[in-house]
Amino acid sequence: MSVDAQASRARIEFWFDFASTYSYLTAMRIDEAARAAGVTVTWRPFLLGPIFSGQGWNTSPFNLYPAKGRYMWRDMERMTRERGLPLVQPDPFPQNSLLAARTGLAVRKSNTAKLPAFCKALFTAQFGDGRDIFDTQTLMDAVSAAGLDPKVTLEQAITPEIKAELRNETEQAQGIGIFGAPTFVTSYGELFWGDDRLDQALEWATRVSR
Amino acid sequence: MSVDAQASRARIEFWFDFASTYSYLTAMRIDEAARAAGVTVTWRPFLLGPIFSGQGWNTSPFNLYPAKGRYMWRDMERMTRERGLPLVQPDPFPQNSLLAARTGLAVRKSNTAKLPAFCKALFTAQFGDGRDIFDTQTLMDAVSAAGLDPKVTLEQAITPEIKAELRNETEQAQGIGIFGAPTFVTSYGELFWGDDRLDQALEWATRVSR
Repeated sequence: MSVDAQASRARIEFWFDFASTYSYLTAMRIDEAARAAGVTVTWRPFLLGPIFSGQGWNTSPFNLYPAKGRYMWRDMERMTRERGLPLVQPDPFPQNSLLAARTGLAVRKSNTAKLPAFCKALFTAQFGDGRDIFDTQTLMDAVSAAGLDPKVTLEQAITPEIKAELRNETEQAQGIGIFGAPTFVTSYGELFWGDDRLDQALEWATRVSR
Repeated sequence: MSVDAQASRARIEFWFDFASTYSYLTAMRIDEAARAAGVTVTWRPFLLGPIFSGQGWNTSPFNLYPAKGRYMWRDMERMTRERGLPLVQPDPFPQNSLLAARTGLAVRKSNTAKLPAFCKALFTAQFGDGRDIFDTQTLMDAVSAAGLDPKVTLEQAITPEIKAELRNETEQAQGIGIFGAPTFVTSYGELFWGDDRLDQALEWATRVSR
């Protein structure tokens, strides 16, 4: 078997919520890290909200538990500085990521290869420029940045088909045991939670694909 | 200034709860990692229970949120296998760590240098052999393993002085913003949460001490 054929079997899924701070950290580096490791990434937007609701939470745990929230923002400051990324605290936090996730699925339906570019543009708009990701203009700008038609994509995003698809994605996330974001899933359902587990997930993916 | 004098200024505090799985991971490697980085470690046992209670939790979040709990045990399996450590799930989990923390403070009072050896012996008894850390015999064995007198130390552990000291330690943990374990604290109150942040904490400690 050629090296290419072997490499093509190493895969991870990157499950994320557009409102998630640590998902932003991962989104901005996963493609490069995966390429270096010879792993193919599938971007899987979903909604953490329904999963948090199921745990009895009506908002982010970073709001429910102030010490955890203060730590997270300080940690984000350190990590973004280290990686040369901008950081603005969105107001409100967390942002409503419903329309963003639907738009992501519409982008995927139209052209899967454009999804990472859309996601990175949207994460940067939110955490770099403090823009509202529930705002249609923010979404349309990110769709344009990915090289797709913003009007067509946003119309697609609110079809019953895409709404149902997002519900399915979120149920699937819950079904495989996802409780936070980002989460990396390798073959055989192995879960790795958190941006700081990306390297471990990639290493695991290359190991199981051998 | 000599290299030794410089190195002596790089310090971190290692705050942990004896019932905490990820604190076990850290306890078994922190001395070696810190020595390699030229950092001095202060071991700080405290109780997570009162901090969790303050957040409205009556047990470990790993019990309250089953998906998180399942993930944690699988993650612990992977991590302990990778590091060549034994792993047994204590029954019940989490163990009552009150007497263990008090005994740790009694060990520290008697001879600070013996605290790491006591902690490692106790973590290994719990997560390696499944022994009950609320059981006096388990504690006495760990005290003996550290080279101190078990009877004298256990008597010391239940004095009003040690009880008050543990309350103070736990209040101090809460005061500096600790919400989980392990947590590493460097000079100027910089917090790093989780075993997977140990390297970052050590690196930070050497940077601020320059």
